Amino acid sequence: MERDSGSMEYRLLEQVNCPRDLKKLSERELFELCAEIRAFLLAAVSKTGGHLASNLGAVELTVAIHRVFDLPEDKLVFDVGHQCYTHKLLTGRREQFCSLRSFEGISGFPKPWESPYDAFVAGHASTSVSAAFGIASALTLQGSPHYALALIGDGAMTGGMAYEALNNAGRSRTRLVVILNHNDMSISKNVGAFARYLSSIRSRPFYLGFKRRVKRFLTRLPLLGKPLLHWLEHSKSLLKSILYPSTFFEDMGFEYLGPVDGHDLPELIRTLALARDMAAPVVVQVETVKGKGYPFAEENPGAYHAIGNFDVRNGGDDVTMADCYSNQIGQELVRLGEEEPRICAVTAAMKYGTGLHTFAAAHRDRFFDVGIAEEHAVTFAGGLSAQGLLPVFCVYSTFLQRGFDQAIHDLAIDGKRAVLCVDRAGIVGEDGETHQGVFDAAFLSEIPGVTVYSPEGYEEARLCLRHAVLEDRGLSCVRYPRGGERRSHSLPPSTDFQFIDRGGRGLLISYGRSFSGCWQAAEALERESGERVSLLKLTRITPLDPRLPELVSRFEQVLFVEEGIRAGGIGEHLAALLLEQGFRGSFRIAAIEGRFVPQGRLEELLEQLRLDPASIQERMHHMLKGGAAHA
Amino acid sequence: MERDSGSMEYRLLEQVNCPRDLKKLSERELFELCAEIRAFLLAAVSKTGGHLASNLGAVELTVAIHRVFDLPEDKLVFDVGHQCYTHKLLTGRREQFCSLRSFEGISGFPKPWESPYDAFVAGHASTSVSAAFGIASALTLQGSPHYALALIGDGAMTGGMAYEALNNAGRSRTRLVVILNHNDMSISKNVGAFARYLSSIRSRPFYLGFKRRVKRFLTRLPLLGKPLLHWLEHSKSLLKSILYPSTFFEDMGFEYLGPVDGHDLPELIRTLALARDMAAPVVVQVETVKGKGYPFAEENPGAYHAIGNFDVRNGGDDVTMADCYSNQIGQELVRLGEEEPRICAVTAAMKYGTGLHTFAAAHRDRFFDVGIAEEHAVTFAGGLSAQGLLPVFCVYSTFLQRGFDQAIHDLAIDGKRAVLCVDRAGIVGEDGETHQGVFDAAFLSEIPGVTVYSPEGYEEARLCLRHAVLEDRGLSCVRYPRGGERRSHSLPPSTDFQFIDRGGRGLLISYGRSFSGCWQAAEALERESGERVSLLKLTRITPLDPRLPELVSRFEQVLFVEEGIRAGGIGEHLAALLLEQGFRGSFRIAAIEGRFVPQGRLEELLEQLRLDPASIQERMHHMLKGGAAHA
Repeated sequence: MERDSGSMEYRLLEQVNCPRDLKKLSERELFELCAEIRAFLLAAVSKTGGHLASNLGAVELTVAIHRVFDLPEDKLVFDVGHQCYTHKLLTGRREQFCSLRSFEGISGFPKPWESPYDAFVAGHASTSVSAAFGIASALTLQGSPHYALALIGDGAMTGGMAYEALNNAGRSRTRLVVILNHNDMSISKNVGAFARYLSSIRSRPFYLGFKRRVKRFLTRLPLLGKPLLHWLEHSKSLLKSILYPSTFFEDMGFEYLGPVDGHDLPELIRTLALARDMAAPVVVQVETVKGKGYPFAEENPGAYHAIGNFDVRNGGDDVTMADCYSNQIGQELVRLGEEEPRICAVTAAMKYGTGLHTFAAAHRDRFFDVGIAEEHAVTFAGGLSAQGLLPVFCVYSTFLQRGFDQAIHDLAIDGKRAVLCVDRAGIVGEDGETHQGVFDAAFLSEIPGVTVYSPEGYEEARLCLRHAVLEDRGLSCVRYPRGGERRSHSLPPSTDFQFIDRGGRGLLISYGRSFSGCWQAAEALERESGERVSLLKLTRITPLDPRLPELVSRFEQVLFVEEGIRAGGIGEHLAALLLEQGFRGSFRIAAIEGRFVPQGRLEELLEQLRLDPASIQERMHHMLKGGAAHA
Repeated sequence: MERDSGSMEYRLLEQVNCPRDLKKLSERELFELCAEIRAFLLAAVSKTGGHLASNLGAVELTVAIHRVFDLPEDKLVFDVGHQCYTHKLLTGRREQFCSLRSFEGISGFPKPWESPYDAFVAGHASTSVSAAFGIASALTLQGSPHYALALIGDGAMTGGMAYEALNNAGRSRTRLVVILNHNDMSISKNVGAFARYLSSIRSRPFYLGFKRRVKRFLTRLPLLGKPLLHWLEHSKSLLKSILYPSTFFEDMGFEYLGPVDGHDLPELIRTLALARDMAAPVVVQVETVKGKGYPFAEENPGAYHAIGNFDVRNGGDDVTMADCYSNQIGQELVRLGEEEPRICAVTAAMKYGTGLHTFAAAHRDRFFDVGIAEEHAVTFAGGLSAQGLLPVFCVYSTFLQRGFDQAIHDLAIDGKRAVLCVDRAGIVGEDGETHQGVFDAAFLSEIPGVTVYSPEGYEEARLCLRHAVLEDRGLSCVRYPRGGERRSHSLPPSTDFQFIDRGGRGLLISYGRSFSGCWQAAEALERESGERVSLLKLTRITPLDPRLPELVSRFEQVLFVEEGIRAGGIGEHLAALLLEQGFRGSFRIAAIEGRFVPQGRLEELLEQLRLDPASIQERMHHMLKGGAAHA
């Protein structure tokens, strides 16, 4: 981190290079440390970009966790991971903060290969309780006295996995501490009934305070206290429900502590210590304020609270820019919705990220935000479709992996009409491995009867959406990349394929965003070495047009470029068709081969994967010269 | 249905050809009808096979549903669908019951293409509330006065999707009725905390009866009653918690009615009518006894209740035979567990189905049944692995589709050591479209860094398991079919590939169970037409051995046989490699192409798919004669 003038600014923070250092500070110094962390985060994230508000809200909580627990022996599992910056600062990564989210820099998410303090991968929602319970079970088996902690926001609590894990972990004899970060800003009608329930717990502090006091009183009472408490806890009587009301978490077999003010450091430390001493599965409900300490928020609380454009799913820091595929799709869907009253839009807590806010405003009764719950979203769409409506579920490619089974079982199996708008398809950039949308072309094209479009450019994206919604039968998918269009050509839009006959023995085939890279490569080849190659642009990538093998067979050197995983991808589908039909030329697939794609800017990553225009040019050139494309 | 002597036996049942007929019967006749249905089911299922106990438990409930609601305008969505037989009987499918679960016969699960009374596909667990809420939302939009009903067992309530849907549906203004069939036999410690919670509700009938009485009293009280009730329902006071204790479902925004005796027909009809009249999302908890009315159970309640070998997941009717892959894998895992104390076994409510009961007995502390929760199961295994253990998750191929995202995100991304034992891989037979394990080879082989084995025969399956658990790094999968081994050869086991050089220009390639079909085809070709073809048996199907393309290139006519989906399958992976490496022969893939596989016996289905030995022989013969394999 390039330091601002005056090292006094981070006097304490600079002394904390690992959690042990933090334990040496006095309680008063911890307050100061929190202030320094906030200042540091504001300065750092304003330069690198990243999730600010969610991290500012978790400063005291993270400090308290590191004060009470012993990381890395105790294991802290983040959910999603949008609140891990303070944790990274306190675990020896302060100096690297300038590289946050950049190529080969530190990740915006917890990464076990980055630090032993990051106990588990995070990125997708609602995984933390499962992972932490796995770790806790292992610790129990190993006879370890250490703890597994899950830090989960109320948004991620709408995901079914979290419930599956709570259901499984309740009454287990493990040292599992689930810290539920209940965030004021996440409370919206979209989050669903459970968030309301959490709020209702908060709104009756007397009620739970009373219970805590009963428990404390009985615990301290000699002789009779513990048997009485045991009776209270295990009785099913009406008296219990009065003296000792139970929360959902207690019904699920957890101890429950809370709600605690997430910015009251001494109270947090006391409560976490209590949780630790229980040595049993426990839920600690912590109330935090997103963006806490952010001057803008403090000076303009009204404006801050009224801020509308954020998604529960991603914590509100990735507000979509105006000029992007998401908004183009969203606006086209508004128009389609005007023409066709059966069209409904579904989102899994990503109204803004997927550009559906305009549809939500225009066709309010036909807009459904189902919470962070892609599985439910797909089957819910199936229900709408069963009743004759035309559901369009807009979802990020990486999160649609969650709905794979449902797309097969609840949509495709009986040919229901439904459209999946697969946003952030392809490389997404700075969010890294967990978020790259590189699997969808492969897993969607497996599904019997599916149609998949991968348009390039807004006009084509709109055309494909219109076609999918109004004309296709069965399950239809339209996939498009993050960000805006960057076409290097001006071909008219199509829903099938376009062959650009430029002569020559070579053919470059691609779809979606990477077609422009092929176009550039073809132009550079002609300009620089006088080699003419033709181009084939696929828009509908499944099913492949039956005319393609014959067309491709006219060429001797064919390079298929795919910004997605090779195994099961479109290049392999075409290769198999060509081989079966006796293609005798030279064929190569340039795709992502058996690896995960790290964080970085799109251009950097394409270059590293050899999918950038220069690499495509080089590979085609090599093929035309009769060498191997892999050289 | 071939009728037993004396048509008096089904006097009333034979009058009911649609639900309207049922509404004409008197209440007394309904009792008799239930008795006839039980007799019919016993007689029918004893001939065709199928799920008996779960269906016997739901006789009165189904009759009550059809009495109170108006199907098919009201939509009944089954969860899993193991209780749909009575529904099928009452909706005009009595005569077809002899074809239950057989090829081109009626399905054991609800199927919209079979009857307009089957509102939605069922088969995988925990989908019903999502689908029914989708339908209910559509009905509301359409201004329809009709209802959407979800009938869900407590087992399926352990799946996160059900929770996602409840969370989303609570407080919606839809006519959604969730009927929770709480089944005595499903209560086991495996089901988790939520099932205990349901039982705890049952154990305090006074408590809820009291609440119902308060409500009824207030509803009838003129003037003040309704405001008082409104206050009670919306207040957060301590008084409310005493007078009006709330269940989890009420906290989630549902009305709650129950628990009701699921075999007390008049009470069921009354309660369902009450639910209908609420015209708001409501949960009705019904207590049923599995196998109710089955003479064996009634005469031997002790033995019946002690029956142990059943899984929550599949309702206890698919107890695994002794001689099968599942048990072979389970027993090998017991031995491995003795050698290596870090090995743990995980199941998603399928201890018996996956053959893990022996491991559970031998290594109790290292056995984890996580409930019907594949997503959680995969990430939980990731947690075990993060802590240095060696988790083995045994799961049916079709249900692993639920864990696809988690396998990528929580296992593969950082190369965690974990093993997936993929049971029922390939065609499963009578359970039909929803259960065929035909996608796993494709979707697993997409995952970067994964190793996938598809052994044939017990010895090879054991060897692969051993290799995966003890030697492989990262994520490793062993897939094997339903049932027992049926090898037509005696090759020694391998974890890589085996080339059987029988001379000739032709080569048959396959993996897993279908290799034996290739072997038979090769022998028949030689015997019947004197054509010699060589054989290539793949055991490790991902990654493919780099020596394969060169080996295959020695042949002119190559047929790849795959009992799985073509798109993204192993045949396509190999085809792409061959094409890239300049293979000049003729290559064909025989696989499942863009369709779902219906119910039937394995042999029937293979024949229909042209994957049986005779079809393989014919296709190879045709290729050798220089024609097209597709002819």
